[in-house]
Amino acid sequence: MAFLLSRGETLTVTDPIGEQVADLLAFRRDDVDEAISSGRSLDYAGRLFLTTGAAIYSNRSNVLLRIVEDTVGRHDFLLTPCSADTFRILYGDEHPHQGCFGNLSVALAPFGIVPDRIPVAFNIFMNVVVNAETGVLRVAPPLSRAGDHITFRAEIDLIVALTACSAPQSNNYAFKPIDYAIGMAECRPRSSSL
Amino acid sequence: MAFLLSRGETLTVTDPIGEQVADLLAFRRDDVDEAISSGRSLDYAGRLFLTTGAAIYSNRSNVLLRIVEDTVGRHDFLLTPCSADTFRILYGDEHPHQGCFGNLSVALAPFGIVPDRIPVAFNIFMNVVVNAETGVLRVAPPLSRAGDHITFRAEIDLIVALTACSAPQSNNYAFKPIDYAIGMAECRPRSSSL
Repeated sequence: MAFLLSRGETLTVTDPIGEQVADLLAFRRDDVDEAISSGRSLDYAGRLFLTTGAAIYSNRSNVLLRIVEDTVGRHDFLLTPCSADTFRILYGDEHPHQGCFGNLSVALAPFGIVPDRIPVAFNIFMNVVVNAETGVLRVAPPLSRAGDHITFRAEIDLIVALTACSAPQSNNYAFKPIDYAIGMAECRPRSSSL
Repeated sequence: MAFLLSRGETLTVTDPIGEQVADLLAFRRDDVDEAISSGRSLDYAGRLFLTTGAAIYSNRSNVLLRIVEDTVGRHDFLLTPCSADTFRILYGDEHPHQGCFGNLSVALAPFGIVPDRIPVAFNIFMNVVVNAETGVLRVAPPLSRAGDHITFRAEIDLIVALTACSAPQSNNYAFKPIDYAIGMAECRPRSSSL
């Protein structure tokens, strides 16, 4: 799916069964050459794993989304959406399906966003384990359990794309649904003195 | 600098003094919408740290460059080229300089490549230490010593951009030159039987 998410709105992505990854992209609505950037976001956060309070920056160093709630705390921002090439190169499939990259491309086409403009996605619930010494990456089963969720708040008007992931390793070899909901961020003060 | 590197040619980047980072970008010469991709390269390599024998893939899953020699073995492919925004956000500079991103933008402009098309660079000699448990990233002094070098072979005709890095932390707080040379890959068989 791709859809509009306006400034101040929230997007909650829920794993209804558990152990299922979703790839998230976001683009500035009025100028889609500005998109989420793993490199800027990881650099400014100073960490690989982004969770509650962290900002997702664009290639122009603006905050597109902020994580306002997260019941899992482990997501990936290193690897690209799986694609026909992923399945050909990593899994040896002779007739690979289109994967997340294909799903995102189809969903974004009506917004005029072409496949070459798809950057590294924020891979919700994806559990990439890093060996700090060797640098070896291991795609482990997601830590998400049924009902776990993450909520983002849009800081500007966005086009968002979201897909459930279809890479076997990323989802513990079972393909499951992903739920999402759009809401309004609450802006009440935490306390009031009358 | 930005320059042409043709299929079969090699690019050797040397750290003449030691502890100096260089940011490298590469684009398909006849279609600059195809560029190096950290996400694809890390995914297909299955590791964070790329060294001799590793391929640098494009966003379209083609190999643009292959590392054919590397005397250091520690380079970064996580963080974006430092920019005025980097210095504003991470260092609090009120009048930041343009950094690697500005240098690369200026060098690439004559090739029709605009700043929004600059992806995560391959950060030669950059030493980013990862805490595997917390995900915290620490930019440590490069491991390169005087004369250390890395050599890439172009797998297709490319436009390459290269800059010495100007981020204090990345270079152990001293800004030093980077040398580079273009050569021809040797294609001799390793052994011959007559």
